[in-house]
Amino acid sequence: MMGGTHQDDAVQGLTGQSARGRSNGSYAYPTALMTDMYEYTMLDAALKDGTAQRRCVFEVFTRHLPTGRRYGVAAGQGRILDAIESFHLGDDDLRFLSDRGIVSPETISWLEDFHFSGSIKGYREGEMFFPNSPILQVEGTFGECTLLETLVLSILNYDSAVASAASRMSSAANGRPCMDMGGRRTNEWAAVAASRAAVVGGFQGTANLLAAKLYGLKAIGTAAHCFTLLHDSERDAFASQVDALGLDTTLLTDTYDIEQAVKTAVEVAGPDLGGVRIDSGDLASLAQRVRMQLDALGATKTKITVTNDLDEYALASLQNAPVDSYGVGTMLVTGSGAPTCAMVYKLSEREGSDGVMVPVAKKSPDKATVPGRKLAFRSYEYGLAECEHVISGSEEQLSAFAPQEGWKDLLVDYMVNGEGDAALQGHDAIAAAHEHHAKALAELPITAQSLMRGDPVIPTDILVL
Amino acid sequence: MMGGTHQDDAVQGLTGQSARGRSNGSYAYPTALMTDMYEYTMLDAALKDGTAQRRCVFEVFTRHLPTGRRYGVAAGQGRILDAIESFHLGDDDLRFLSDRGIVSPETISWLEDFHFSGSIKGYREGEMFFPNSPILQVEGTFGECTLLETLVLSILNYDSAVASAASRMSSAANGRPCMDMGGRRTNEWAAVAASRAAVVGGFQGTANLLAAKLYGLKAIGTAAHCFTLLHDSERDAFASQVDALGLDTTLLTDTYDIEQAVKTAVEVAGPDLGGVRIDSGDLASLAQRVRMQLDALGATKTKITVTNDLDEYALASLQNAPVDSYGVGTMLVTGSGAPTCAMVYKLSEREGSDGVMVPVAKKSPDKATVPGRKLAFRSYEYGLAECEHVISGSEEQLSAFAPQEGWKDLLVDYMVNGEGDAALQGHDAIAAAHEHHAKALAELPITAQSLMRGDPVIPTDILVL
Repeated sequence: MMGGTHQDDAVQGLTGQSARGRSNGSYAYPTALMTDMYEYTMLDAALKDGTAQRRCVFEVFTRHLPTGRRYGVAAGQGRILDAIESFHLGDDDLRFLSDRGIVSPETISWLEDFHFSGSIKGYREGEMFFPNSPILQVEGTFGECTLLETLVLSILNYDSAVASAASRMSSAANGRPCMDMGGRRTNEWAAVAASRAAVVGGFQGTANLLAAKLYGLKAIGTAAHCFTLLHDSERDAFASQVDALGLDTTLLTDTYDIEQAVKTAVEVAGPDLGGVRIDSGDLASLAQRVRMQLDALGATKTKITVTNDLDEYALASLQNAPVDSYGVGTMLVTGSGAPTCAMVYKLSEREGSDGVMVPVAKKSPDKATVPGRKLAFRSYEYGLAECEHVISGSEEQLSAFAPQEGWKDLLVDYMVNGEGDAALQGHDAIAAAHEHHAKALAELPITAQSLMRGDPVIPTDILVL
Repeated sequence: MMGGTHQDDAVQGLTGQSARGRSNGSYAYPTALMTDMYEYTMLDAALKDGTAQRRCVFEVFTRHLPTGRRYGVAAGQGRILDAIESFHLGDDDLRFLSDRGIVSPETISWLEDFHFSGSIKGYREGEMFFPNSPILQVEGTFGECTLLETLVLSILNYDSAVASAASRMSSAANGRPCMDMGGRRTNEWAAVAASRAAVVGGFQGTANLLAAKLYGLKAIGTAAHCFTLLHDSERDAFASQVDALGLDTTLLTDTYDIEQAVKTAVEVAGPDLGGVRIDSGDLASLAQRVRMQLDALGATKTKITVTNDLDEYALASLQNAPVDSYGVGTMLVTGSGAPTCAMVYKLSEREGSDGVMVPVAKKSPDKATVPGRKLAFRSYEYGLAECEHVISGSEEQLSAFAPQEGWKDLLVDYMVNGEGDAALQGHDAIAAAHEHHAKALAELPITAQSLMRGDPVIPTDILVL
């Protein structure tokens, strides 16, 4: 669609030649200090008083969706597995903790060989979530689980915000491919995560090269206005682009006068020109005029791509315009009005001094939590999701719990005793998440796709055993 | 204030023992693929047609501030210098570009030894900006300048969004220290950049350890609810924290019942307890009650810290409450409603085929640009800023331009012919930006500090020579 010879085949859109393996060389970075200081000071105190070894279950959930949203899309779990692999402290990091007096020498020793040896289960990537869905549960000692809090939340909160926006956008685009072009409007690393999350939420590719490389995503691109301005004429610029990138490229037509640019484009490239892009003005009306002009010039197969601060509402309003694909930037990477999710990481069960696990909860006003570890199922009627069921109880109670017929189990194991499931990491996991998301969205009542503000599309029922 | 013995001295708040030098070991990462694909395909075409060597001036500016904002705060320039130092392509990156067919073999050769050898000037970090302020100007060959577009914008757009929010918040806090606790609500690397930008915009410290380490920022922290829940009783938890972290620590009081917790806290720590934190409920009213209770218990010097989805409006409404410091999270790292700036990177001047520099501009509807390189000054009346003056012209015209008496030159040299100014990078630059920001804010008309929506606090006058 965009980028011509410089893109992968659309059908295999998500497969790239350099899908990320277990190691990504210079792009792997230690994550252990991507953490709030209090995780380390709490560890320090808990090691001193002996509670750091208590077994704990932490739960990631959100109390509410962004105002008016019907569902959220969970994303980032695969990146959490990557991040935990890199969660170790180098000499330099240990020296920092020591020099600043953040933890005691005993804790420094404990941290020297730290690796997370606990277990993680949670919602699939691309799965829908609702208020109180137990999106992730992390089980291990207090010491190892508390160190992960900030990092786990950073990843899930941002990635899920982008995936949730992407889902609404790709749904509003109604089958037309949406491409991520938002990297320039968010932090440079957030951009890479956003590309990945966008694909989880239904996008087909990204302009971001590092994301394309690390995650094996389809890379796309057209040209910028500077390329036209650089040349002595628009004709020179178009001729150069076609010469270097081939006929299948997409020419940018709104630097000076669109009608003239489209005429020049077809004169230069002929009727087999791959595509044109419009980046300003009334996109629906311009697309209509450009389509008629292209058709009149015989360029009936030349595609039209539009860009310019698109969001799900703009995409919905363009559905009758003759547009072939969308490039989405700012509103994608900023979550379309909801740049973060309100996910929190709360202790729900911990070992007592007698070795018995105890459900725990805080009682803070408006921020009380539901004690106990959780199961999660979704029930269906006529093949459509009807209710989210969250079951809370002890490990014994939960293992004896029999879900009703037809309830789908929403939890998968990401990590068992420190061993991550490689199938839930890397490129293949993203492709699987993209597919799972499409399937799960199709199973939600159609109201989910409404852009009107309203309640979550299905209720969450919490059963405390 | 927060974190007791585990923090640096407040006066030297911004100085840390491990301020980032020119190399940050495993945290330095190559940035050359943090780029949209079209930068590389345009380079490819321009190398082929000979225009890649044309001298160019690109300008970063925004057409508008976020709705109702009175000013923006520029941040991230020091990080751009870091990022350019790491802008090189490893074998693996080159193989990716080659395998995907993104650029030709000739371009791969050109990229092998790539380093940016151009010049960059722009607004100081911490400086206020307005619509059309030439925040950064990048000069060099088209090839080298176009490759930086995405990365430069990612950094400036996000960092400035956070610094702008931080500025409004620290202004609304009216002298009470604001601390960044937002890492968990944004991408894990964005969190690090946000901590830095928050300090540029007036914050005093951060919970984020990696930011504290890389940039030599003051690290702060209290404790989480899980620490109380982990223990058999709140009393056990408080005793453990005081034992490990010292009397000067801050105890979290809202896990169960605040009044009881405050009582327990003073019983455990005595009247010299450093601080208590309240994280839920009606913060003003709770702070008032807790202050009275602490005073009655003799803990008159114990500080009160509040947190819980604070933004500038909440901070303004808390000004009469007996609060000593604020922890700000979500709304800081998401730019308090404006998670990105609308900065763009546009070609404003380029060499023609005859070697003469030509001002250029695009004419896209609503997105037209002002041609030519720029100077920028701010004029004052009674010591208060009155107008932003942007002067556009050729290099000769600009070098002959004489600003009026009292106009402050807003541009500094960040990089000259590929050599960055080390004084504008790293910890010291952040401390300088923090101070410059405070001074520049004090020189804006007081309307700048209004939280009411309105126009930019001073107009921008554009003079085309």
